[in-house]
Amino acid sequence: MRIVVLAGGIGGARFLQGVRATGAEVTAIVNVGDDVTLHGLRICPDLDSVMYTLGGGADAERGWGRAGETWAVKEELAAYGAEPTWFGLGDKDVATHLVRTRMLDAGYPLSAVTEALCSRWKPGVRLLPATDDRLETHVVVPDPDAGPDSPDGGGSRAIHFQEWWIRHRAALPAQRFVFIGADAAKPAPGVLDALAAADVVLVAPSNPVVSIAPILAVGGLRDALVAGSAPVIGFSPIIGGAPVRGMADKCLAAVDVPVTAAGVGGLYGARSADGILDGWLVDTSDAGTAVDGVTVRECPLWMTDERATLAMVQQGLTLAEEVR
Amino acid sequence: MRIVVLAGGIGGARFLQGVRATGAEVTAIVNVGDDVTLHGLRICPDLDSVMYTLGGGADAERGWGRAGETWAVKEELAAYGAEPTWFGLGDKDVATHLVRTRMLDAGYPLSAVTEALCSRWKPGVRLLPATDDRLETHVVVPDPDAGPDSPDGGGSRAIHFQEWWIRHRAALPAQRFVFIGADAAKPAPGVLDALAAADVVLVAPSNPVVSIAPILAVGGLRDALVAGSAPVIGFSPIIGGAPVRGMADKCLAAVDVPVTAAGVGGLYGARSADGILDGWLVDTSDAGTAVDGVTVRECPLWMTDERATLAMVQQGLTLAEEVR
Repeated sequence: MRIVVLAGGIGGARFLQGVRATGAEVTAIVNVGDDVTLHGLRICPDLDSVMYTLGGGADAERGWGRAGETWAVKEELAAYGAEPTWFGLGDKDVATHLVRTRMLDAGYPLSAVTEALCSRWKPGVRLLPATDDRLETHVVVPDPDAGPDSPDGGGSRAIHFQEWWIRHRAALPAQRFVFIGADAAKPAPGVLDALAAADVVLVAPSNPVVSIAPILAVGGLRDALVAGSAPVIGFSPIIGGAPVRGMADKCLAAVDVPVTAAGVGGLYGARSADGILDGWLVDTSDAGTAVDGVTVRECPLWMTDERATLAMVQQGLTLAEEVR
Repeated sequence: MRIVVLAGGIGGARFLQGVRATGAEVTAIVNVGDDVTLHGLRICPDLDSVMYTLGGGADAERGWGRAGETWAVKEELAAYGAEPTWFGLGDKDVATHLVRTRMLDAGYPLSAVTEALCSRWKPGVRLLPATDDRLETHVVVPDPDAGPDSPDGGGSRAIHFQEWWIRHRAALPAQRFVFIGADAAKPAPGVLDALAAADVVLVAPSNPVVSIAPILAVGGLRDALVAGSAPVIGFSPIIGGAPVRGMADKCLAAVDVPVTAAGVGGLYGARSADGILDGWLVDTSDAGTAVDGVTVRECPLWMTDERATLAMVQQGLTLAEEVR
């Protein structure tokens, strides 16, 4: 069986552990909207979270970055006064970014770089960036000092997602999210083929607004997903009215979507009505959730360990057979 | 008093501690021929050795790099199979290279980058790269497999100085040294002015072949030195027929110069005979050394601590008055 997963970073990585455990041939299409260049290093947080987690190199407790990480480079950069100082740049992580940056500078596309990095990590699934082209998630936030040329005609400014997320801990009210470059971006090599050949497509319980939406925003990707023959099953990132992890609530508020399993299901929408979903899995605590035109089922969605995650993935595969 | 010093890396750094202790206004013109780009990082070993040493951040015992250094980045790069693995790239050091590379990529010349880095380290002397232009020391070594287009018309190849020095520990016989780009290189801003305004010029007991020679090879620099009114006093890097440190013996052999204080003095030569020296200081154990046209004096040249180094610098300044 061939499974394609749309995934963000940490939640996507954990979800993919369960998908990999099915023994299927898995392709993960990973968000690149969070990618950023800092200190001259090209950093791909979501691809790296997935790669490190599936490759056994992630720090399980902290939830991001490498196990046994050290911070000499970051401390030294701060000692030089080199901005920004708010990004968590670990020493081991820096090596990944150096290899990536060097390959990108040499002309390799991100998909080829990712494949090269994975030759070390052997994640057991095929990792594809959603696109090799520039696609950056920016966040429009209030700024009383911004002039009339600012994103919303005065009184606002756009900052990189990482600045909003890490530096400001998502505390600045987001007015909207902009996926810069998405229209012109093409799906990375392998993405459309994987979607066309998929037996089932799973949407990981990642942040719908800043992890899944930027993937779907890549030119042609959403159309290919919808046009495909494989059932599309989504997993709710909201349990009992709160995000499983991260700050999805802040992101959903910005796009006026209720922080509920029904809210996110409705945001994705039914494939039969210009949306992407055939089925929607919600947590047992959210039993009774309804989404127009989408078959909703419930099962435990807490990814406490790989066994629990495998069980919920299997529920998703069962739902896929049901809606096929 | 204004003192200009021509200096290489570790020996130059130690020497400059003594020069700084005189209380004079010191400008160091530092070799850049060893500079290399590895893993996308621009590395300037001599400038950094001087900066770290004078700024109190050097590892005194190891002799190069930062005190309290760690090696996570280097180990991770090796785990990725990223070449080369033979260069000692410490984590703290990486931060310096990241700041430098980012500034160079932004268009700042190396002299401006060096000044910016020194705003943290406050070395107490003005550090100038010999040139902002590309100047790389390559070493021609035997290679039986090399074709007729190789540097010496077959049977040899040229490798970067760092590859010869670090990877091969100078064990490949050097046929000659080539300072790539030297002819076209211009002295960095401030270099010619410093030479013109100097009361005395000191040639540090650095490697004459691969530290001092590349400085002198920068277009116009040697002429400016010779045309200046300040006495030029050299300090022998050879004591009792062996280099004080490093592998100067291997380098001298390549250019057919005896590994003696007289040999190096003769290599520099008298200013009155197309050379650069007015005075030459040799160790007391080399008393009796003679160099045509150069006033030779002896004093202890072991730079065991700052006090000893200051004493030998003061002997150099005394010799400068003698030959002025």
